[in-house]
Amino acid sequence: MLAEGILKGEIRAAARLMRDIDDEVPSAREELKKLFPHTGRAHIVGVTGSPGTGKSTLVDHLIQAMREKGLTVGVVAVDPTSPFSGGAILGDRIRMQRHSTDPGVFIRSLATRGYLGGLSRSTHDIVDVMDAMGKDVILVETVGVGQDEVEVIRLAHTNIVVLIPGMGDDIQAIKAGILEVGDIFVVNKADREGADKTVRELEIMLEMGHGSEDGWKPPVLKTIAVHHQGIPELLRQIELHRDYLKEHIWEDRQRRRIQEKFLETVRDLLFEEASRRLQKERKWNALMEAVGRREIDPYSAAEQVLAEMLRPEVS
Amino acid sequence: MLAEGILKGEIRAAARLMRDIDDEVPSAREELKKLFPHTGRAHIVGVTGSPGTGKSTLVDHLIQAMREKGLTVGVVAVDPTSPFSGGAILGDRIRMQRHSTDPGVFIRSLATRGYLGGLSRSTHDIVDVMDAMGKDVILVETVGVGQDEVEVIRLAHTNIVVLIPGMGDDIQAIKAGILEVGDIFVVNKADREGADKTVRELEIMLEMGHGSEDGWKPPVLKTIAVHHQGIPELLRQIELHRDYLKEHIWEDRQRRRIQEKFLETVRDLLFEEASRRLQKERKWNALMEAVGRREIDPYSAAEQVLAEMLRPEVS
Repeated sequence: MLAEGILKGEIRAAARLMRDIDDEVPSAREELKKLFPHTGRAHIVGVTGSPGTGKSTLVDHLIQAMREKGLTVGVVAVDPTSPFSGGAILGDRIRMQRHSTDPGVFIRSLATRGYLGGLSRSTHDIVDVMDAMGKDVILVETVGVGQDEVEVIRLAHTNIVVLIPGMGDDIQAIKAGILEVGDIFVVNKADREGADKTVRELEIMLEMGHGSEDGWKPPVLKTIAVHHQGIPELLRQIELHRDYLKEHIWEDRQRRRIQEKFLETVRDLLFEEASRRLQKERKWNALMEAVGRREIDPYSAAEQVLAEMLRPEVS
Repeated sequence: MLAEGILKGEIRAAARLMRDIDDEVPSAREELKKLFPHTGRAHIVGVTGSPGTGKSTLVDHLIQAMREKGLTVGVVAVDPTSPFSGGAILGDRIRMQRHSTDPGVFIRSLATRGYLGGLSRSTHDIVDVMDAMGKDVILVETVGVGQDEVEVIRLAHTNIVVLIPGMGDDIQAIKAGILEVGDIFVVNKADREGADKTVRELEIMLEMGHGSEDGWKPPVLKTIAVHHQGIPELLRQIELHRDYLKEHIWEDRQRRRIQEKFLETVRDLLFEEASRRLQKERKWNALMEAVGRREIDPYSAAEQVLAEMLRPEVS
């Protein structure tokens, strides 16, 4: 029912399904199934940068530039919030509220989930909902450190890595971490001292062969997002990269993305189902207690669960 | 065979098993089973902080202080390296090499793994090996951003959060992210301007109720790790926290930790086994292809896998 509403353009239905996805309501999967034939059209753009690089401001101005071109935009903001408190950082969202009355823009914040893989799965699903809503571009904003975030990055078609001048030591970390996934590099706050040096350092590293593996040569741009400076050129590069992908490897990426989604769903469903049975059936409870009392090691106990839960293999 | 060597104190056997754990060699689990009865004794201390906070130097000096007290030390350094390049940041490790000739210290670096949960699992396992080796304290150094890192933090008994003066905006992120898990807060590089302000801000936030939930009041300490300043007091607080835990909730944490390990192993084994079968059996290959061609949605395909792979539930 939600899916039908979403396909008719009902914002509330979309918001409701996203909440269900967040809360892991099982019926959400049924809705996603119905939306599936309507996905695969949007251009998914990751925007990754450390706190303080101004990436939210950049996203804010990218939205404006895209809207001026008549593109509809979805935004998924992945916040590094606590899995313990459920809290979230509000500043960025408030800043972005100037788009909240624009029906061509849909913004959704995601909290880091309390268990592994939750963030990646929710983001995937929410991107799919926005895709089915017909958004032309979907911006996924992440901090970009940590493994779960890397999974998020992998779902994007185009990845923008945001830095600021004079990151010095951080360049090393960036080099090791996200240089390989960047399709476009942005040195934001480019009116600060050292902007050109940071640009040069990046270009050298990219030339040393840490760039994309697909033949695309990642450009390094300067922006002052807060003054909208460099934003039109950034948008142009985003579109160039999309065209490049379309010509070369778009289909391949789409196929890989959906197959990953499938494997991810298998993993999640298996664990959900196993957890459910482990909690429900008394024999598993007894096993959990025995593990807690160290009467059996956790590995042997897990093997026992597997042997009882899986069908024997057909050979 | 490796397990026996490790219990006899053979360093090379330990290094070998850790490499097997890293490479996900299945036989590693058999060795971990044998080590299991010899684990549960070490005090696991997490050291978490952003790049640039000097936490590696802090760890370096903590090792020194612990060695002076006659404690043996294991260190697991979790690096934010690329899942794509397999690269790693070497600087920190080189700095710590002054301990490399000390048989009372065992240091191991871990790369972020290419799939979700890998980091958390490897770290768990490697901590267990060091525990079985008889190390009194095991320091786990992480960047502390990202979900996988949060899982790493959860395995520690005592968590030290390292900051530097004048983090300004970052305080918000810290507040949302790791304040709840910190048992001891350290403002390192305390000779920099704004150290007292940062201490006060932290204390205020902790008083506002974001502290630990177990009754422990997290202290905020100042250190200048590079000059060993404040390190003895930090060590004293680590020991105080351990004593506090022992008196109150040590057993409970140990039990929870091992039960989590069990559930984690169930999840990993299920997915490993499912992936193996999906790759091996022709019918799954056909399903994967159909998903890639969008002939079936990934959710329905995953449900089909589950129905065929799991035994029906006993009710």
